[in-house]
Amino acid sequence: MNIAILLSGRGSNFLAIKEAIDNGAISNAQIVCVISNKEQAAGLESARNFGMNAIFLNPADYKYIENGVSYFDRNAYDSALLDLLKANNVDLVCLAGYMRVVTEAVINEYAGRIINIHPSLLPSFPGIDAQKQALNYGAKVSGCTVHFVDKGVDTGPIIMQTTVPVFQDDNEHELSKRILAEEHKLYIKAIALYTKGLLKIEGRKVSVVS
Amino acid sequence: MNIAILLSGRGSNFLAIKEAIDNGAISNAQIVCVISNKEQAAGLESARNFGMNAIFLNPADYKYIENGVSYFDRNAYDSALLDLLKANNVDLVCLAGYMRVVTEAVINEYAGRIINIHPSLLPSFPGIDAQKQALNYGAKVSGCTVHFVDKGVDTGPIIMQTTVPVFQDDNEHELSKRILAEEHKLYIKAIALYTKGLLKIEGRKVSVVS
Repeated sequence: MNIAILLSGRGSNFLAIKEAIDNGAISNAQIVCVISNKEQAAGLESARNFGMNAIFLNPADYKYIENGVSYFDRNAYDSALLDLLKANNVDLVCLAGYMRVVTEAVINEYAGRIINIHPSLLPSFPGIDAQKQALNYGAKVSGCTVHFVDKGVDTGPIIMQTTVPVFQDDNEHELSKRILAEEHKLYIKAIALYTKGLLKIEGRKVSVVS
Repeated sequence: MNIAILLSGRGSNFLAIKEAIDNGAISNAQIVCVISNKEQAAGLESARNFGMNAIFLNPADYKYIENGVSYFDRNAYDSALLDLLKANNVDLVCLAGYMRVVTEAVINEYAGRIINIHPSLLPSFPGIDAQKQALNYGAKVSGCTVHFVDKGVDTGPIIMQTTVPVFQDDNEHELSKRILAEEHKLYIKAIALYTKGLLKIEGRKVSVVS
């Protein structure tokens, strides 16, 4: 099974996935490309250093001009992304801190084959700064969620969730670190089930077939 | 500390609170009245059987007529409720399956002194049928939340939360039962902190003072 990783930052979940493939925790899978919308993403640099297929897909190359104003062409960008995924025979797309909404064209083509990890117990605290949202809300429990990606922001069917406590003297850094440690474990478990063909989606319900 | 219980159904949380007061898990407190908007509420009957001050506050007695149509007068009802709370020198109002939104007059008068337990990890799944909402969403984790009551529906500052797993073959009954067992424990812990004067509210953050 060919995995593509999409990332925008350091890609700590990418590194966890790579290690899990290397040590056999995720079987029947290989990472065929690591794609980023950020040239300076540390995760892209890591991929390069591993000798992996590391691709910077430059948003600046996808623009359109309207009334003399230049706009980012999201559809053209994702069309190029889709071409890359197809060219690499990608079976599963794993978002790993990819700070860009994937458009409908990609989601439709890869329905049930794009997964994401989000640092909250969805549906609580979707979108950016989930850990900060949890702290500001005064939640006493948070966690992380691995889910299939649909057209909404962090709204797709949930594969797995795990919880972490929020302590009353927590700050964003501490809570993020606590959640991130769980993210690595949870994402690997979910991907391992996926690559073994054990996940079944029915409507919003994801179950593990036995 | 004088506690009022408001309930509409069997009041299993009321029974758990009563037991905790009886066995000392909640100290410095007594239940001075159990109030219900439902005459047939089993919780009200239990209170009567214990010889407690069990009060049915009949919604049918609070109506106003407009253009010949009779409406429930929510404000008049809650004004009577407020009178009851004051007459009983109530310090803390515990909602225990009270299926009615408490109006602003009561909330303002008892700011920081009304608490509720809700069968989900708020802010996920507020309002009615929280367990069913969690199942329909395909959540893998749910739980319960004790919170101060504010003007919104299940939006007040969170005191405590605890989690339960959602199993893939769960139904509403099984999940509700699993959550309810945790509700009893969590509500008692939160009330015990309250009656000891150990809870501090700052904005949305509730902390335990040491």
